[in-house]
Amino acid sequence: MIYLDNAATTPLDESVLKAMLPYLKGVFGNPQSQHFAGREAAGAVLSARDKTADIMGCAPDEVYFTSGGTEAGNTALKGVCAAAGKGKIVLSAIEHPALLDSAEDMKKFGFIVELVKPGINGIVNPDDVARAVTDETVFCAVMHANNETGVIQPVEDIGKICSERKVFYYCDCVQSAGVLPLNAGICDAMGVSAHKFYGPKGAGALYIRRGANIARLMSGGRQERGFRGGTHNVAGIVGLAAALENAVNNAQANNKKIASLRDGFVERALFEIAGTHLNGDALNRVPSNANISFDGCDGANLLFLLDLAGVAVSTGSACSAGATTPSHVLTAMGLGETRAKSALRFTFGKYNTAREVDEVVLALKTAVGKIRK
Amino acid sequence: MIYLDNAATTPLDESVLKAMLPYLKGVFGNPQSQHFAGREAAGAVLSARDKTADIMGCAPDEVYFTSGGTEAGNTALKGVCAAAGKGKIVLSAIEHPALLDSAEDMKKFGFIVELVKPGINGIVNPDDVARAVTDETVFCAVMHANNETGVIQPVEDIGKICSERKVFYYCDCVQSAGVLPLNAGICDAMGVSAHKFYGPKGAGALYIRRGANIARLMSGGRQERGFRGGTHNVAGIVGLAAALENAVNNAQANNKKIASLRDGFVERALFEIAGTHLNGDALNRVPSNANISFDGCDGANLLFLLDLAGVAVSTGSACSAGATTPSHVLTAMGLGETRAKSALRFTFGKYNTAREVDEVVLALKTAVGKIRK
Repeated sequence: MIYLDNAATTPLDESVLKAMLPYLKGVFGNPQSQHFAGREAAGAVLSARDKTADIMGCAPDEVYFTSGGTEAGNTALKGVCAAAGKGKIVLSAIEHPALLDSAEDMKKFGFIVELVKPGINGIVNPDDVARAVTDETVFCAVMHANNETGVIQPVEDIGKICSERKVFYYCDCVQSAGVLPLNAGICDAMGVSAHKFYGPKGAGALYIRRGANIARLMSGGRQERGFRGGTHNVAGIVGLAAALENAVNNAQANNKKIASLRDGFVERALFEIAGTHLNGDALNRVPSNANISFDGCDGANLLFLLDLAGVAVSTGSACSAGATTPSHVLTAMGLGETRAKSALRFTFGKYNTAREVDEVVLALKTAVGKIRK
Repeated sequence: MIYLDNAATTPLDESVLKAMLPYLKGVFGNPQSQHFAGREAAGAVLSARDKTADIMGCAPDEVYFTSGGTEAGNTALKGVCAAAGKGKIVLSAIEHPALLDSAEDMKKFGFIVELVKPGINGIVNPDDVARAVTDETVFCAVMHANNETGVIQPVEDIGKICSERKVFYYCDCVQSAGVLPLNAGICDAMGVSAHKFYGPKGAGALYIRRGANIARLMSGGRQERGFRGGTHNVAGIVGLAAALENAVNNAQANNKKIASLRDGFVERALFEIAGTHLNGDALNRVPSNANISFDGCDGANLLFLLDLAGVAVSTGSACSAGATTPSHVLTAMGLGETRAKSALRFTFGKYNTAREVDEVVLALKTAVGKIRK
């Protein structure tokens, strides 16, 4: 079994589970409770908040714990829209469905949505964002690294444009957290999801700049300064902070290792299999990602054959899995439907090995051969 | 250390953690992924959904997994309002802040909110709900059992009224799940939270009647039939179903044991300490709850002294903890501010013992004595 779908989710690190276990066993209090059991749990959340804020580059009271990246994105977009009442939403056309679908849902309330397409290399041009961000614009989102191609976006430049025009800028860092440095200073809000960096599923963090004009999504309770109700998922929050800290501390070594595996794989796949094309900029991408189209192949069929061979990959994002339409990311880049539908996403992780790369190349050759025959 | 705050949260059962651990260790796939790792995780979610639906009394495709009870309530109320566009919201005045604050937030969008007060016994009169539910009403919520008093509400009658008037009826079952039988048939939606019945924090389930006119709260992804985006918290979902099954299977024995502890405590507290008053109907309440006012005492001070003595109780709900205003539940019942502020909530659980009751009565006498001196 070879797992090359680390952009969909990653295994929970043993050290992270170890950090979580006390909060699944002995320490079970509700952090809101005003007694010893509550304080013990509240202390753990406090410490996790400090760690997370430190890594995000913001103050602890600018961190809001959520159930994941999707809630983070929904909270940012819908919260800004609810506070503004009306206006325009500008998104890159390659955002995660959490943002795209949230914007779509805001149309019903009179909001205008403009999608900014990236170039053929998968990079969004800040000039295009500058053109789209007009006076009526209340919210802009361009992600840090794309989940399908891994292509890194010029978020600092986009942040500057939004800041100058006083437009709320959300930077989805779900794919970059623990890989690239996070910098809350360049945006008004930023979201991460623990299970993308060897943390638990069901835990995310959202930075929101202090003083931002934003309404809450999850009403009720006094948790998270009244902005996000619901009993804290203490073990999940502890796991998120432990995993993020771990990822950041080991990013350099892991990135190097993962990039080397990925680069070796891409070189061999493109060289040894004819009719293959790397999708997205070859240089500006996170170390884990290879998105490759195979002429004459349907990605879904290829995925199926690889799955039978014990290799886990994906045709696009897991959140869009099961869709019969071609990837919205690849088509937004200007790739044709055939090229988009023949794409597979291989995402490497820190537990992959060079030997696995050899096996995957072999399995891939066999599968492509079968389909093309 | 004696824990009498089981309405705030309960410890995670060892058997539930055991059921969860495979999904925190080996099985880590994203249930949306179309390969072996994804299918394994998807299978676990499927099985948890079947179990949960069976206990809730609905079809599996009427179950939506959420991050908890607060998300369940927010999804129901805001989703119905977003779909309706305008109208009136009717809530009991003793609902959880997840509902009350959600309704408050909907006022901004033109919704009218009416709160129906219970009687002095803490029970909402269905006739009062019938009067409030007018033609413009789009949403009604009256909880199954109150979180502060444990008082059980006539939800079946209220469900009938709403059904006749074609008003969406949400029944918050966070405090009753695993204790009283759940019956999706009497309402349009129902929410439960795993950590209230010895399951994990960060996991909830929401039943929504098939065909209901409701918009999603959490946009993005194809999870939960496109209604609730975000990667499934697989371990949390597995834990929720295991805990719910466990609670339901042992409800009779646990209820008997817990009621006996609670009844013994109430009898002694009311008899041995002068100037004490049980708040809420003595008979129509869940077996775990005792809400008692102590003349001449401030609940917060009493809580503080009990905490020092190693006894964990609460002044109201954990979600409102830290509030300096008197309980909205007790004041809605018509109790004066002094009586409301002198109240403590004792909520028993299956791990409490008769010996603990003795110790708590003793600690309580001492604490009350100190304050009254």
